[in-house]
Amino acid sequence: MSTIETMSHLSALQSSTDLLSTSTIIALTIFFSLLCACIIVGHLLEENRWANESITALLLGLGAGAVVLFVSKGNSSRILVFSEDLFFLYLLPPIIFNAGFQVKKKQFFKNFTIILMFGIFGTVISFCLISLGAFFLFKRIGVTSLNTQDYLAVGAILSATDTVCTLQVLNQDDTPFLYSVIFGEGVVNDATSIVLFNAVQSIDINNINALISLKLLGTFLYLFFSSTFLGIAAGLLSAFIIKTLYFGRHSTDREVALMMIMAYLSYMLAELLNLSGILTVFFCGIVMSHYTWHNVTESSRTTTKYAFATMSFIAETFIFLYVGMDALDIDKWKASRASAGTFVAVSSTLFALVLVGRAAFVYPLANFITCIKKRDSSNIEFRQQFIMWWAGLMRGAVTIALSYNQFSNSENKDTEDSALMITSTMIVVLFSTVVFGSITKPLIEAVLLRHTKPNVSDATDIPSLEDLRIMFIENGEPSDTGENQPAAAACRRSGLRLLLTHPTWTVHHLWRKFDDRFMRPVFGGRGFVPFVPGSPTGAADETSRT
Amino acid sequence: MSTIETMSHLSALQSSTDLLSTSTIIALTIFFSLLCACIIVGHLLEENRWANESITALLLGLGAGAVVLFVSKGNSSRILVFSEDLFFLYLLPPIIFNAGFQVKKKQFFKNFTIILMFGIFGTVISFCLISLGAFFLFKRIGVTSLNTQDYLAVGAILSATDTVCTLQVLNQDDTPFLYSVIFGEGVVNDATSIVLFNAVQSIDINNINALISLKLLGTFLYLFFSSTFLGIAAGLLSAFIIKTLYFGRHSTDREVALMMIMAYLSYMLAELLNLSGILTVFFCGIVMSHYTWHNVTESSRTTTKYAFATMSFIAETFIFLYVGMDALDIDKWKASRASAGTFVAVSSTLFALVLVGRAAFVYPLANFITCIKKRDSSNIEFRQQFIMWWAGLMRGAVTIALSYNQFSNSENKDTEDSALMITSTMIVVLFSTVVFGSITKPLIEAVLLRHTKPNVSDATDIPSLEDLRIMFIENGEPSDTGENQPAAAACRRSGLRLLLTHPTWTVHHLWRKFDDRFMRPVFGGRGFVPFVPGSPTGAADETSRT
Repeated sequence: MSTIETMSHLSALQSSTDLLSTSTIIALTIFFSLLCACIIVGHLLEENRWANESITALLLGLGAGAVVLFVSKGNSSRILVFSEDLFFLYLLPPIIFNAGFQVKKKQFFKNFTIILMFGIFGTVISFCLISLGAFFLFKRIGVTSLNTQDYLAVGAILSATDTVCTLQVLNQDDTPFLYSVIFGEGVVNDATSIVLFNAVQSIDINNINALISLKLLGTFLYLFFSSTFLGIAAGLLSAFIIKTLYFGRHSTDREVALMMIMAYLSYMLAELLNLSGILTVFFCGIVMSHYTWHNVTESSRTTTKYAFATMSFIAETFIFLYVGMDALDIDKWKASRASAGTFVAVSSTLFALVLVGRAAFVYPLANFITCIKKRDSSNIEFRQQFIMWWAGLMRGAVTIALSYNQFSNSENKDTEDSALMITSTMIVVLFSTVVFGSITKPLIEAVLLRHTKPNVSDATDIPSLEDLRIMFIENGEPSDTGENQPAAAACRRSGLRLLLTHPTWTVHHLWRKFDDRFMRPVFGGRGFVPFVPGSPTGAADETSRT
Repeated sequence: MSTIETMSHLSALQSSTDLLSTSTIIALTIFFSLLCACIIVGHLLEENRWANESITALLLGLGAGAVVLFVSKGNSSRILVFSEDLFFLYLLPPIIFNAGFQVKKKQFFKNFTIILMFGIFGTVISFCLISLGAFFLFKRIGVTSLNTQDYLAVGAILSATDTVCTLQVLNQDDTPFLYSVIFGEGVVNDATSIVLFNAVQSIDINNINALISLKLLGTFLYLFFSSTFLGIAAGLLSAFIIKTLYFGRHSTDREVALMMIMAYLSYMLAELLNLSGILTVFFCGIVMSHYTWHNVTESSRTTTKYAFATMSFIAETFIFLYVGMDALDIDKWKASRASAGTFVAVSSTLFALVLVGRAAFVYPLANFITCIKKRDSSNIEFRQQFIMWWAGLMRGAVTIALSYNQFSNSENKDTEDSALMITSTMIVVLFSTVVFGSITKPLIEAVLLRHTKPNVSDATDIPSLEDLRIMFIENGEPSDTGENQPAAAACRRSGLRLLLTHPTWTVHHLWRKFDDRFMRPVFGGRGFVPFVPGSPTGAADETSRT
């Protein structure tokens, strides 16, 4: 028996990972190392005005892509291939669910009309403008092989905003109005642009008439309401199950697992029923935070609050890292065969269209809202309009996923121009996130905070002190204790007058009455839980939240 | 424009999930619905003596498989295909990490010798016996096409115990000794059997001599120690990073994300370096709970404790469901072409070998330990030995994964006997989990609790009151406050005598001194955190844990 033979045995034994494919492990190790690096670097740059987590992840991803490109001698920059399935099945749901779970519900519903106007009409306006602009301008640049459907798809693709960057900078407590509007618009916008995109992909371009357009609108409304309904139903079901069976009696793990799985299930079910999973899981999050969250034990509450936020945080970082690494994919660049000039021309055209498309609805709609709501003193100042415009300029992972779907899967198309469109979209995403994203924080400071007059820069339609009080107890609306009696009594005395002068507040009050009388006894929620272990949580939660 | 055309447009629009493949969505929806059902049914059966979560999941999986088989008219029972990658990359790491994170460290290290003896020597003995038994018995049944390597693999495959079932029944507080030994053995056993399996797969059977056996032992020790070292290093690194940069200043999400990702990274890194990822991630969990956990904020602590447990819980349920659904895979049963008699013969032979193989090391080793440790009064009673034997009879997902690896990937083998081996392994797993698993709870009650004498049925080598006190403060060892001074002084006075009479206690004391003087100032840990927000956590945690 020679030594060499023994050595070969040993080395074979040492490769104790025959069970797993080595390339997968290498890719995962590199990727998770980068994720770690992102978190640490992002933390160190926290105080930096120009950087944030998204930009860090994107740049780290670009850097890693460059290293891989260098190591593989220009053959490949990819460790992981951008997969729409991974994005839509596993990364997007936790982000949107957490958004619904953590949103300040009162602010969100107070501005619901504005959010819907921006999210739906705004996106449609932007879609039309970008499609038209691309249709007329691209031919002059030399991009000729795209058909009408492609142009419409470009409009839908570039209407999908990515507000993650902005929300990392805006503060929910300093500027509640702006935060809730931009955030809410982002969610509705995602849903709208994905619905638009699917409509564009499935429609016969040559046979469009008024009836079909109307039917499309009907379908959109159907999607919107049934998705919302499904999300609410899933949330209520989870609240009912946990309240009735009272899981906390046995196990925190089970409660947390059930909330997590039911939320994910609502998304999957919506996708299965061809609804908008994003809207469903968003409303599921809202309902869960309103009812289910109050039915579980103290430790489950803390765990869900932070675990959902962590999952969302990891998914966001993952996406930006992923996009950064994918950007340098050399095959795509080669496939387009375009000159640097064409890249710049197409990208800057697209970006200009994004700028114009957003300006074309933000300013008119904001002024329109100011006009019709004059009696509520809820005028949106120009500098707020500017921030609203700016906040929606970034494009992100949804844009890239849709762009891949449109331009990489179709075999019957001119591959050169398709590759050009993918790379140009990529440039728009990178440029808007890195450049615009890094200017956002200083810009918001300059525009908003320097001119700030306390409680004036934010539109409020009820007296600010009352607003503040309700916001403090908003996490779970208070039960009918003594301190609310004066307000309730005042309302009863002059219900009609209030409805005229403070419509939102009155709707909120009516909802609270309905909620207290019919919903909470069945589904739980603050003040209606079977048993609350530990101390009162509301105050403690508010302090720990700051 | 006809109505039909309009309808087709609308239906096309409604299929807004062109982005995702429908089959994936259906599979995921069904699977997550079943997961939900498992949790709810498992909760409802909590008080039931015969059922537990694993059995529920397994039976639900079997039921779902049967339904799919019926719906597809006998063509397929599969929704998801059992994938080793999924198992080893995503499901196993959270389970093992959580095991390390939640283990009572003091008990674990007190019984470290016993755990290592059972986990390493025990597994090897079991491996030899099962291999030999299969070699001699299978030919009589009519299974002839297996070669020596296959028989050795069968030994390794069936030596991998699955103690999840037992641990769901045993109580860490009632029977700390049994719990820590069975649990610790389970972890070491997993590692040992996987290492053995890899050794068997890579070795040249015809050239075995004493030198190679010795080298194999050396390699095993190398794997064991380097894996452990890597896990400890990863844990310490995470503690150091979080302590130095103090993430809590900014964000709970970041701390939790970093702990999660670094733990996962340690597993991946170990697999990349061809070490045992299971051991690495287990020790990473132990170190993280000793140092890192104390460096994060109060809310991060609650979140990590329950989020890790929830992830492990979901992964476990997932695995059992998965195995249940996979069991009825019709192709495998058809491929083996064996008669029902052969199935029964092979399976019962394997199961008998498992019973004998385990008995062959539990009783001798336990009595051996009782002999050499007589002075510590740590004799292991016969009924404890019986429970130790019983607890390791269940076979689980590791067995199935290894069996697939051995018998389904190899192309140059007789497929009939390979399929027979896979299905027989499956029968052993199902039978042992469902039948033995459901008897476990009543059995343990009958054997242990009826005969229980308080604090006697459990072997303790230090006075029980002192033990109790240390166990209460074990979660983070106490800093040098006044109450520990008498014990410390007593120890200093009679260090040598104590080392002789209470070796474990003395080692623990020395470790504590080293920990307090060198480790904690660098890596944090209880009493050495830069800033503790909120109230003292130890007591609160102990109460919330019950």
